[in-house]
Amino acid sequence: MRRALRGVSELSLLPQRRRRENLPTHVVGLALLFLVPGLMVATAVEWASNTSHAEMPLLVSGLVTCAAGLTLAAGFRPPDDVRPSDVFPVVVWTWLSCSLVGALPYVLDAGTFGWSQWDSALFESVSGFTASGSTVLVDIDSHGRGMLLWRQLTQWYGGMGMVVLAVSVLPLLGVGGQELMRAETPGPESDRLAPRISGTAKRLWLVYAGLTLAVAVALFAVPGVGLYDAVAHALTAAGTGGFSPHSDSIGHFDSLAAELVMAGGMIAGAMSFSLHYRALRGDWRAYRRASDQMLFLKILASATAVIALLLWLRQGASFGLSVRDAFFNVVTLATSGGFHNIRPGGLGDFAAWTPPAQVVLGLLMLIGGGAGSTSGGMKVFRAQIAAAHAVRTVRLARRPRSVVPVKLAGAVIPEQAVGRVLGFGTLYIMSFGVGTLVVASLGADPVTAVSGVISALSNMGPALGEAGPSSNFTVFARPARLVLAALMIVGRLEITAVFLGAAVILRHLLRRR
Amino acid sequence: MRRALRGVSELSLLPQRRRRENLPTHVVGLALLFLVPGLMVATAVEWASNTSHAEMPLLVSGLVTCAAGLTLAAGFRPPDDVRPSDVFPVVVWTWLSCSLVGALPYVLDAGTFGWSQWDSALFESVSGFTASGSTVLVDIDSHGRGMLLWRQLTQWYGGMGMVVLAVSVLPLLGVGGQELMRAETPGPESDRLAPRISGTAKRLWLVYAGLTLAVAVALFAVPGVGLYDAVAHALTAAGTGGFSPHSDSIGHFDSLAAELVMAGGMIAGAMSFSLHYRALRGDWRAYRRASDQMLFLKILASATAVIALLLWLRQGASFGLSVRDAFFNVVTLATSGGFHNIRPGGLGDFAAWTPPAQVVLGLLMLIGGGAGSTSGGMKVFRAQIAAAHAVRTVRLARRPRSVVPVKLAGAVIPEQAVGRVLGFGTLYIMSFGVGTLVVASLGADPVTAVSGVISALSNMGPALGEAGPSSNFTVFARPARLVLAALMIVGRLEITAVFLGAAVILRHLLRRR
Repeated sequence: MRRALRGVSELSLLPQRRRRENLPTHVVGLALLFLVPGLMVATAVEWASNTSHAEMPLLVSGLVTCAAGLTLAAGFRPPDDVRPSDVFPVVVWTWLSCSLVGALPYVLDAGTFGWSQWDSALFESVSGFTASGSTVLVDIDSHGRGMLLWRQLTQWYGGMGMVVLAVSVLPLLGVGGQELMRAETPGPESDRLAPRISGTAKRLWLVYAGLTLAVAVALFAVPGVGLYDAVAHALTAAGTGGFSPHSDSIGHFDSLAAELVMAGGMIAGAMSFSLHYRALRGDWRAYRRASDQMLFLKILASATAVIALLLWLRQGASFGLSVRDAFFNVVTLATSGGFHNIRPGGLGDFAAWTPPAQVVLGLLMLIGGGAGSTSGGMKVFRAQIAAAHAVRTVRLARRPRSVVPVKLAGAVIPEQAVGRVLGFGTLYIMSFGVGTLVVASLGADPVTAVSGVISALSNMGPALGEAGPSSNFTVFARPARLVLAALMIVGRLEITAVFLGAAVILRHLLRRR
Repeated sequence: MRRALRGVSELSLLPQRRRRENLPTHVVGLALLFLVPGLMVATAVEWASNTSHAEMPLLVSGLVTCAAGLTLAAGFRPPDDVRPSDVFPVVVWTWLSCSLVGALPYVLDAGTFGWSQWDSALFESVSGFTASGSTVLVDIDSHGRGMLLWRQLTQWYGGMGMVVLAVSVLPLLGVGGQELMRAETPGPESDRLAPRISGTAKRLWLVYAGLTLAVAVALFAVPGVGLYDAVAHALTAAGTGGFSPHSDSIGHFDSLAAELVMAGGMIAGAMSFSLHYRALRGDWRAYRRASDQMLFLKILASATAVIALLLWLRQGASFGLSVRDAFFNVVTLATSGGFHNIRPGGLGDFAAWTPPAQVVLGLLMLIGGGAGSTSGGMKVFRAQIAAAHAVRTVRLARRPRSVVPVKLAGAVIPEQAVGRVLGFGTLYIMSFGVGTLVVASLGADPVTAVSGVISALSNMGPALGEAGPSSNFTVFARPARLVLAALMIVGRLEITAVFLGAAVILRHLLRRR
C-alpha cells in the first residue's frame, strides 16, 4: 500500500506536503483505480462484439472512475500510523464507493437500467461487488457482451476484495476466523498494518488470478463453451459470485463437464486462499490441518449423498441425474455461489425439490464455506465453535464450577474469540429479524421475505418462494431491493465490520457538523 | 419435599430401611400422586355432565396413576444429599412420566383416541403438560366434558410444574434467568436443595392457584360464559397453555370482555410468579425493578400498536376491531398462550394478516415472556443479554483489549451467565435446525415444518402455513407429531435441562446394562 501510494503520489499535481491525511479517502481512490482496467476491457469487448452499443457508457464510466480515483488517491495520503480500528470504516467506504461507481455504466446506458431505474442499477452493482449474485436484470442475454462482462467483472473484483479482507485484513482485527486456524502460523509480526496487509494481498491476488485463469481454460476446453462464456463464468466462479451472462446460468451449456469445472472453481473459492497459497508452494498437507476446511468438504460430500438419495428415491429421478444435480446444487448453495443448472430434462430447480432436500440446502446456505474464502454465510468455523460452546453449556450446567475450554481440532480457542463468534451469530440473527420485518413491510410474502433476507445476508444469489432460481429479485418491491442490497453489504463485510464501520462513519459525520 | 416424603412413607408397606435411594423415581411418584385428584375431578364431571361415557377410562386412569404413584413415591426414598446436577434427570423423568400417564384416559377411551392412535394421545398429553396447546383432537366440542376437563387440567398441572421449575428449581442451577434479576434478592442460603425448593414451591402454588381462581371468577362474570367454560379456560390461562374445550377457542364467546380476562390471565402467567408473590405481599414496585418484565410489557404495548395500525391502515378494518384483535393475538402469541379468537366478523385468523404483522408475531413467539413465568420461547432476559453481548462484540472489535461487561438494568451480568444464554440460543437454533430437517423429511412443506418446529420449541400452540390457528396439528404426519412432541419437552424444560437430563439418563441406562 505504501509503495502503491508512492507511485500514485508522483502523478499528483498537489505538492506532497499539503495533502491531507485521510485513510478511507485514499484507499477508496486506490480501489477505484483498480476498477479502471476492468471498465476499459468491458468497453473494448462491447465495441468489438458489436452486440449492442453501450461502449460510450462504459468508456465514460471508466474515465470518470479514473479521474475520481486519481483525485482521491493522490489528493489524500494515509496517516503514518494506521490503527486496527481505522480499518473498519475504510472497508465499508470502499465497498460502498465501488458499488456506486460500478452502477455508473448501468445508469448511463438507457438499454440496461437508465437513470430512472437507479435503484436497480445500484442493486445489481452491490450484488456484484458483494459477490452475491441476486439479479434484477431481466432478459439477461439481450444485453451487450461488454456490459455483461462488466457485470461479471464486478463479482471478480468483489471476490478479490473479499480474499484480501478475509485473509489479510480481518484476521489482524480478530474478526475473520482465519487467525484461529492452527494451520495458519502467523507470519513475522509487524506493528505497521499496511505493509503486512499489502504483502499478503499480493500473494493472494496471484492465487485468485491463477484460479480464475484455470477455470477459464478448463471451461474453454469443454465442448460447446466459447471463449467469452469461459472467461465470463471463470470471473464469477472463484469469487463464488453467481452472475452469468445467460438467464439460464450454467444450465445454458447443458453439460456435465461445465458443471464440474464450475463446481471445482466454487469449491476452491470457498476454501482458504492462504491455504491454496501454501499448497501451491508444496505444503499440500496444510488443508488437512485446517479442521474447518476439511469439515466443509465433508459437509459437501454428505449433503450431496443425502440429497442424491432423496432425489433418487423420492422424486424418481435416475441415479446418475440425482447425483449430478445434487452435487452441483449443493456446491452452488454451500459455497454461496448461487449459479443454477436448470435445463430441460434436469432437476436443477431446487425450489421444486422435496422439502427435506430444501431444508438441507437452507442449512448449507446458513453455514457457508471455510475461513479465508470468498464464500458467504456464517462460515464453518463459527458453526464449529458455536456447537462446541453449546456442548460446553450443557456440561457446565452439570458442574458449574468446572472450567471447560472450547477446542477446535485440539487447539483451545480463546474465550474472546468464542465471544466474538457468538456475538457474530447474534448480530446475524438480529440483522435477519430486522431485515425480514422491513422487507415484509415493503410487500413480500413471509417465505419470500425470509429466504430473500437469508440469501442477501449469506451473499447467496437466488432465494426460495417467488425469488427462486428460476426467477429473480424483481419480485421484491423497489424499496425492498435497496434493503436487500444493504443486507448484502452487511453479510459480505462480516457484519461486525460493517456495524462498527458504520458507527465510526456516523460518529465522524455527526462530529463534523 | 422431605415432609411430603415422611407422610407418604407412612403409607408404605415396605419397611423403611429396605427402600432404595432413587431421587427421580421418588419424585415421579409424588408427581403422579398430584395428578390423581385431577383425574378424579374429571371423572366426576364426566359422570355428572352426562355428555359422553368416558367415566370408566378416567376412573381407571386415576386408580392406575394412584397405584403407580404410591408404589414409586413410597418404594424409593430420596438420597439424603441432593446435588444440583441430580435435578436435571428428575425434571426430564417427571415430565415424561406425567405425559405418559396423562395419555392414559385418551387411549382407554375409544371415542377420544383409543389404543390405535396412541401417538396422537401421547402428543395431546405432551402438548398439555408442556402447556403448548397444539392439538390433534378433531371436532373438540363433541367430546365429553370430563375428558375435555382432563385435557385442560394437564395444562394446569404443566403450568404449575413450570412455575416451580422456573422460579425455584432452575435458578438454583443457574439456568432459568430468574437468578440474574436484581429484584430477586436471594433468600436465606441453604446447601440442602430440597427444603429450599419445596418452601418456594408452596408459596408459588398459592399464587398460581389464586390466579387461576381469579380468572375463573372474572370469566364467569362475563355474560354468556358458563361455569364449566369459565373454569376450563381459567385452568389454561395462567399456565399460558392454550387448550380450550371449543374448536373455536376464545372466539367461541365472541366477547371482548372474555378476551380481556384471558389476556390478563396470560400476561400474569407470562411474568415472574415470584414477583407476583412479592406484589401480593405489598411490594408492588418489585415489577419495576425487574427490567425484563417491564420490557416484556413494553414489547406487548408496542407490538399491539404496530399491528393495530397495520390492520387498520392496510387491511381496512375498523380502528376498534384492529386494536382488539391486535391486542388479543399479540398477547396470546407473545405469552405463548396460543388461544385464538377467530369469530365471524373478526380478524382473529392471524395466518391471513398482512406479512409484516405476521413477521412481528413470529418475533414475539421467539422472544417469549419474562423469567420465572410459564411462558415459552427464548425469554426476554435472554434477548436482552444476547443483544447486549452483540453490542459489546462490535465495541470490542474496535478496542480489542478493553473490558466491556454485559449489563442488565445497571447490574453486571457474570460472564458465565452470558455464556449460558448464548449457549442456550445455540442449542435452540440447533434443535430448530435438526427438528425442521426431521419434520420436513416426514412430509411437511417447508413453511409448515419451520413454523411447527418453532411453535413446538416455544410451547406456542398454533403454527403458520397449514397448521395455523384455524387448523390443527393433524396436518403433520403421525411420526412428525412425535418429533414435535419431543421438541415441546425440549422447549419447556429450557433445553439445557433436557439435554443434560437426557445425557445423564442415557449414561445411567447404558451403565446398567
